[in-house]
Amino acid sequence: MKYFCTMSTTIDYQRLLTFTEAVFKAIGSNADEARAAAEVLVSADLRGIDSHGVARLSGYIRLWEAERVNARPHVQIVHETPSTAVVDGDKGLGLVVGPQSMKIAIEKAKAVGTGWVSVRNSNHFGIAAYHAMMALPHDMIGIVMTNASALVAPTFSKERMLGTNPICVAVPAGNQPPFVGDMATTTAANGKLEILQRKNLDAPLGWIQDKEGGPVQDAHALKSGGALLPLGSDRDHGSHKGYVLGSIVDIFSAVLSGANFGPWVPPFPAYVPMPENQPGKGIGHFFGAMRIDAFRRAEDFKNDMDLWISRFRQAEPIDASQPVLIPGDPERIMEVDRKQHGIPLLQVVLDDLQAIAAKFNINF
Amino acid sequence: MKYFCTMSTTIDYQRLLTFTEAVFKAIGSNADEARAAAEVLVSADLRGIDSHGVARLSGYIRLWEAERVNARPHVQIVHETPSTAVVDGDKGLGLVVGPQSMKIAIEKAKAVGTGWVSVRNSNHFGIAAYHAMMALPHDMIGIVMTNASALVAPTFSKERMLGTNPICVAVPAGNQPPFVGDMATTTAANGKLEILQRKNLDAPLGWIQDKEGGPVQDAHALKSGGALLPLGSDRDHGSHKGYVLGSIVDIFSAVLSGANFGPWVPPFPAYVPMPENQPGKGIGHFFGAMRIDAFRRAEDFKNDMDLWISRFRQAEPIDASQPVLIPGDPERIMEVDRKQHGIPLLQVVLDDLQAIAAKFNINF
Repeated sequence: MKYFCTMSTTIDYQRLLTFTEAVFKAIGSNADEARAAAEVLVSADLRGIDSHGVARLSGYIRLWEAERVNARPHVQIVHETPSTAVVDGDKGLGLVVGPQSMKIAIEKAKAVGTGWVSVRNSNHFGIAAYHAMMALPHDMIGIVMTNASALVAPTFSKERMLGTNPICVAVPAGNQPPFVGDMATTTAANGKLEILQRKNLDAPLGWIQDKEGGPVQDAHALKSGGALLPLGSDRDHGSHKGYVLGSIVDIFSAVLSGANFGPWVPPFPAYVPMPENQPGKGIGHFFGAMRIDAFRRAEDFKNDMDLWISRFRQAEPIDASQPVLIPGDPERIMEVDRKQHGIPLLQVVLDDLQAIAAKFNINF
Repeated sequence: MKYFCTMSTTIDYQRLLTFTEAVFKAIGSNADEARAAAEVLVSADLRGIDSHGVARLSGYIRLWEAERVNARPHVQIVHETPSTAVVDGDKGLGLVVGPQSMKIAIEKAKAVGTGWVSVRNSNHFGIAAYHAMMALPHDMIGIVMTNASALVAPTFSKERMLGTNPICVAVPAGNQPPFVGDMATTTAANGKLEILQRKNLDAPLGWIQDKEGGPVQDAHALKSGGALLPLGSDRDHGSHKGYVLGSIVDIFSAVLSGANFGPWVPPFPAYVPMPENQPGKGIGHFFGAMRIDAFRRAEDFKNDMDLWISRFRQAEPIDASQPVLIPGDPERIMEVDRKQHGIPLLQVVLDDLQAIAAKFNINF
């Protein structure tokens, strides 16, 4: 058991949230924004997306130290119509800019049925699902995208041109839990590759290519010029469709808002130099909210969603021990478990958090 | 040459369009709707999506003969807000209901920035790209989806639950041609499988599964209970993401509008019985239009789109003889060629059209 204990320690959710909030306050965020940012970040740990949670906290701090993140942003609408807005995030934490922008989309949907907000001059915003799910209590569908720095090669290319550019769609139901599909537009999310790297395991063929564009399984191939592959893996299996999806996310998030796109998106690691000749400001996001009753009675829709979900759950399984899942099932089950039993953190992440605690003189 | 000539004959675009228009008039469509339907249908042949063009004309006729299609529909808005509408297609041809619904989305976008129309009680609407590209001359982004009868098994299932449920996004540019990404949410479109079936060739592994959910290459496996696979092919390569995408199309097109969804979507072949206990009306579509200048000056956006497109076109290729493509490139090049040199039709399709000509006493 000793070996296991050095590998991961379980931390109470509230304790992790309070600590994270204190860290954001320490870099200068106001009380509301520190709380909001902490909630978004730790929601990733709660939902089992460990790669996007507090494991990245020190990365956000380093971006602030490098003056690439502004802890006291003046987030504002720079252009709008009844159903749309462009928001300038003023170099703020995406964890702060994101919820504020999604709120604008929701308010517009209340007024005219739908709201669509494209955001420039932001930074990484944690998991897309947090923002998309903000629509659910309002009986709205939430749609969220973000671009990210280039790790993905388009079909036929050996050059990294797109981020893992996720799309999340959250749909309310009635008696059933909501449908929450949150997916990178690559075959495998970068977080899954990082897990293999830590364990020194090979990746399945079709996740990555080497610097010449050839097939490779070495999970470290990105460090020597390789690239992640778009969803579909290769041309015969539809990688051009993953490339289309990643491109749509890039265009909606950044070309519509005036953020950086393609190979010009700022990197997350603060030590990586900024790309030269950037055409826009910061990274870009896209937020949408559609009011259900702008289409039909919310009750009718929810009854049909319940039927949709229960019918898909009953789809005949290949293996009786592995039933068909509804998007959002694994994360929801994980969230219930971790809220009750705590969040397991790897020792390397704990060390990181303890170093942050020491730096800012915060109790952890 | 004789063999080749019996395999395919080239027909002038205008001639094919005029003939198709006459056929729709013959089943009772009014002049405007017959013209619109013919333009949508033949646009598939022009763009090289032969599976969705006049090869399906006799299928549409059989749906009309079976009284599953109403040639004189009263298409109407049944619910709306400033940015949304639900349209009831009155069992009309999707080729007619589609453009009318997209026009409503465009008008709403003119008024409040964006327009979103979910459609019930419709039928197949040809290629999604035709409808999405209607937004381009208005300096709008077009977004189009449709559900279709179930051919696709969700991850972990051996049951067909979703159609090939395509998504198309069309984005205007400045000096560059537009970005037009039109994709089934499966690894391979059903039309590609049909080509292999006609040639008695095997499919690549990962396109289809057999009736037990196991790997299979026999292109005819769908006829013995097999299923198409969602984009990603298997769990390790992200098939759950293709399943998410197909589900989103199903929900936006049908649960939002009150059409049939999942396994209840009406089949295209008129001889296939309707699913029992259908929860909605007809098949469903989803149309969106976003006015560029609801976000930023259209000129600024187009300059950035030109930069996006030219930069991606220059992405370093793996093989210098196969440069990186921009979504829409192959179809646009095909359209120019076929408008000039005619549309090649297989003998089996020509025979089909000649039988239709004889039935309705139309000159072909």
